[in-house]
Amino acid sequence: MKETKRIWTTEVTYHVGKRVCLAGWLHHLRALKQVSFLILRDGKGTMQIVVEDPQLIEQLTQLQRESVLVVEGQVVANPQAPGGVEIQHPSITVVSSTNTPPPIELFRPTIKAHLPTILDHAPVALRHPCWRERHRISAASMHGFRKALEQRDFVEIQTPKIVGAATEGGANVFEINYFGKSAYLSQSPQLYKQVMVGVFERVFEVGPVFRAELHDTSRHSNEYVSLDVEFGFIHNHITIMHLLTEVLREMILAIRERVAQSVALLQANIPEVPQEIPTIHFTEAQELITQATGENLQNEPDLAPAHERWLGAWAQREYSSDFLFVTGYPMVKRPFYTHPDPLQPLYSNSFDLLFRGLELVTGGQRLHQHADYMVAIQERGMKAELLEWYLEAFKHGMPPHGGFAIGLERWVSRLLEISNIRETTLFPRDQTRLVP
Amino acid sequence: MKETKRIWTTEVTYHVGKRVCLAGWLHHLRALKQVSFLILRDGKGTMQIVVEDPQLIEQLTQLQRESVLVVEGQVVANPQAPGGVEIQHPSITVVSSTNTPPPIELFRPTIKAHLPTILDHAPVALRHPCWRERHRISAASMHGFRKALEQRDFVEIQTPKIVGAATEGGANVFEINYFGKSAYLSQSPQLYKQVMVGVFERVFEVGPVFRAELHDTSRHSNEYVSLDVEFGFIHNHITIMHLLTEVLREMILAIRERVAQSVALLQANIPEVPQEIPTIHFTEAQELITQATGENLQNEPDLAPAHERWLGAWAQREYSSDFLFVTGYPMVKRPFYTHPDPLQPLYSNSFDLLFRGLELVTGGQRLHQHADYMVAIQERGMKAELLEWYLEAFKHGMPPHGGFAIGLERWVSRLLEISNIRETTLFPRDQTRLVP
Repeated sequence: MKETKRIWTTEVTYHVGKRVCLAGWLHHLRALKQVSFLILRDGKGTMQIVVEDPQLIEQLTQLQRESVLVVEGQVVANPQAPGGVEIQHPSITVVSSTNTPPPIELFRPTIKAHLPTILDHAPVALRHPCWRERHRISAASMHGFRKALEQRDFVEIQTPKIVGAATEGGANVFEINYFGKSAYLSQSPQLYKQVMVGVFERVFEVGPVFRAELHDTSRHSNEYVSLDVEFGFIHNHITIMHLLTEVLREMILAIRERVAQSVALLQANIPEVPQEIPTIHFTEAQELITQATGENLQNEPDLAPAHERWLGAWAQREYSSDFLFVTGYPMVKRPFYTHPDPLQPLYSNSFDLLFRGLELVTGGQRLHQHADYMVAIQERGMKAELLEWYLEAFKHGMPPHGGFAIGLERWVSRLLEISNIRETTLFPRDQTRLVP
Repeated sequence: MKETKRIWTTEVTYHVGKRVCLAGWLHHLRALKQVSFLILRDGKGTMQIVVEDPQLIEQLTQLQRESVLVVEGQVVANPQAPGGVEIQHPSITVVSSTNTPPPIELFRPTIKAHLPTILDHAPVALRHPCWRERHRISAASMHGFRKALEQRDFVEIQTPKIVGAATEGGANVFEINYFGKSAYLSQSPQLYKQVMVGVFERVFEVGPVFRAELHDTSRHSNEYVSLDVEFGFIHNHITIMHLLTEVLREMILAIRERVAQSVALLQANIPEVPQEIPTIHFTEAQELITQATGENLQNEPDLAPAHERWLGAWAQREYSSDFLFVTGYPMVKRPFYTHPDPLQPLYSNSFDLLFRGLELVTGGQRLHQHADYMVAIQERGMKAELLEWYLEAFKHGMPPHGGFAIGLERWVSRLLEISNIRETTLFPRDQTRLVP
C-alpha cells in the first residue's frame, strides 16, 4: 500500500508524463496479440493500463475480475484511450486475488441481469459504475438539502425511530418487541419535528422512515430515507412552498457542482427549478383534467397517479416546468394536524409537489392551537391520550408552522428517469426482500 | 406575521437606533412598580423588552409564560441590559396565548425538576436555553463530521435499519414483525458499510442504531445516533486512527466556529485535539494499571470502566490530553470481522478512543480475505448462510480496510461534562421510556 502517493483514476489526466500509483479493482482485461489492456476501476472511475510484458500479461490472465490491484506506471496522453490518457509500463501488485468470476458482469456499459438478481447480489452489483453513481447523486442531494437549510438557520435533529404508539395511521406500522412490550417503527418524524419548532423554530432531519404498506409498486418501499423540514412563524403554506423551491434549487446546484462526472456518466437530464414553480389549486386541477379527459372527478378527494402524470405533462406544456405545485387538497384526505384554508375550510393549506408527473413532496401548514387539535382528534375518533406528549407542545404556545418531506430515493429515481425506486435504494426493503 | 422584517434576538445588537420586529415566546415577565421587563425567547436567544404602557403591562400580565408573541420596538443600547441592548416602546401582538403555566419552569438559569420529569415533558423542557443548546452542539458536531469526510472524498450512504438476520450478536437485537416474518433492527451499519468499501472505497453514515441491551446505565441508550466511517486501501489501524484524529479536529472546529454562543452559554470546556493523540497498547495499559493499583489484570480481555477512567486521568497527567488511544485489544473480545495484529495474532489491529476517561470510539482494521472470514466464522460457531450476502463482497475482491463509529450523544455528553447520556439525547429510549 503506497497510500501517500496513490491518486484516483479521475486525477490521472493531471499527471501526464509522470509516474503515478493507482489502486482498485480489475474491471476488465482485453488481450490482443501483442498487448493487453487492463481496465482498473477505483471508487471514482476507471483507467486504461497498457500491458506489454508477456509475463505480466500471463499473470493477469490468471486473475478473475474484481481482484484488487495496486498499479504503478507512466501517464501517457493518448487520444485513442478512454479519457485521453493511459498508463504505460506498469508494475502491478495483487492485493486480493479472487477465484470466482463475479455473479454480475460489471464491465459492460449496463448490467444485463434481471432486477431481482441484481438486488440479490447488490454488494457486487453496486460496484457497476452506473449503479454506483446513482448513489453519489443521492449523497450530493443530501449535501445540497442540508446546505440550503443550514444557511437559513435550520438546525439538524435526530428523532427516535422506535415510538411508543402508532399515532399517525395504525395499519401501516411495523411492530417491535421492545423488552416484552409492543413498540412501533416511526412512520415519519412528523410529530417530533413539529414539537421541535417550539425549541429551535427551524429544524430538519435526514433519516429512515418505515411504512408497513402492502402495496407492491415501483414507487413505494417499506423503508426509505426522508428529508424532513419543519419551521415556525410562517404566513401559510405559500411560505413553505417558497422555502421548498429554494431547497430544490440548492439540491440541484449541489448535483451540478459536486458530481458533474456522475451526471455525465448517467446522461442525466437535470432540470432547472423555475424562479416560481407553477401552482394550481386542487379544484382547478380536477377541472382541467375533466375538461381534457371527460372523467368526472367530483367528490374525488385525491388525485390518482394517472392524474398526476397528466398534470405533469400539462405543466411541461404550459410552463416548460418539470415541477408543479398542487395546493388545497381536501381536508378529508389529509392527516389530523393539517391546517384548513381559512377561506374555504373544506380545503387545506397543504400542497404536493409533482416532479415529472409524480408526487415527490408533501407539505403544508399544521394546526398550531391546542383547541383546534382537540377538535381534529375528536372528529377523527383518535385517542388523545396517546398524543398527550405531543399536545403538550401546543398547550404551551406554538407559532403558525409547517413543513414538508422529500423521499430521497424517489427524488433520485425521477431525476435519473429510472422507473423503479429499488434501483435508487442501496439495499431496498419490500415485502419479500430483507436481504441483503 | 411580518416575516420579511423579523430578525433573531441574537441580531438585535446590530440594529441599535432602529425599529425591529422580533418573534418568540414569553420567557419571563418581571413587573416592577413603573415598568415591566418582558424577556422574549426565540429559537436562538432572548431579548429584554421594556414595557412602560400600563395597558400593555396589564395585557401581558394576563398571559401565561410560553405564549407566542410578535414584538416590534426600538433598539436601545443599555449597558445594564443583558447583552447590552434592549427593546423600548414596543407594540406587541399575541400569536398564541396559553392558559396553563408550563410544567417546567424555563426561565431559571437551570431546570430544577428531576430528570424523569424533565424527560416526560421533553417537548417543553427542550425549550430551556441550556437544554436546547446541547442539541445545537450535536448539530455542529454532525456538520464537522460530514465536512471532514466529504473533503476527503468520502461518500455519504444510508443503509437499511431493518435487517433479515441478527448477525452481529443475537441477544441484543430488537425483533420486528415484518409482514408476519421475523426481522430485526440494525445494531450498526457495520456489515453494510464494509460492503460499500467495495463500491466507493470511502463511506460514512449518520444514522440511528438500536441495541436491546438490558443494562440501565447513564452511558448507554437503546437507540442512539452513530457516526460511522469505513474506508479501504489502508495500511493498518494506524491509518484509521490518523483519520479519526482529523475528523475530531474538524468536529471541534465546527463547534467553535458555528455555535460559539452555545459554547459560551453552556460554559463548555472544549478540548484541543493534540497533533498526535497519545497511544498505548492494551497490554501496556494493563501493566500501568497493575503497577498503580496492584490489581491483577492478567487474563482480563477488556478494560473495565474504572480502568478507562484511570487511563483518562493518566493521559491528562502525562500528555495533557483529553484523548487517549488504546490499541491491540485481545482478539477474543472483538467481533468476528476483526483483523489480528500480524505480529501478535492474539491481539487485534483495533483501537478504542478514550475521551475524558470514557470509551467514545471503537474502530479497527477488518479482515478482507474471504478465506479468513470463513475461518473466523467457523471458529465462533456462527452461521455462514446468514452472512452469505456479506461474504460475497469478500469473495469478489476487497482491499485492506477498516473504520470506526462515534456515538453522537456520548460525544456531546462527555464534551459538556454531563454525566447522563439521556440529557444529550432529544427523546431518549431506555427499558422504561418509549414516550415522548
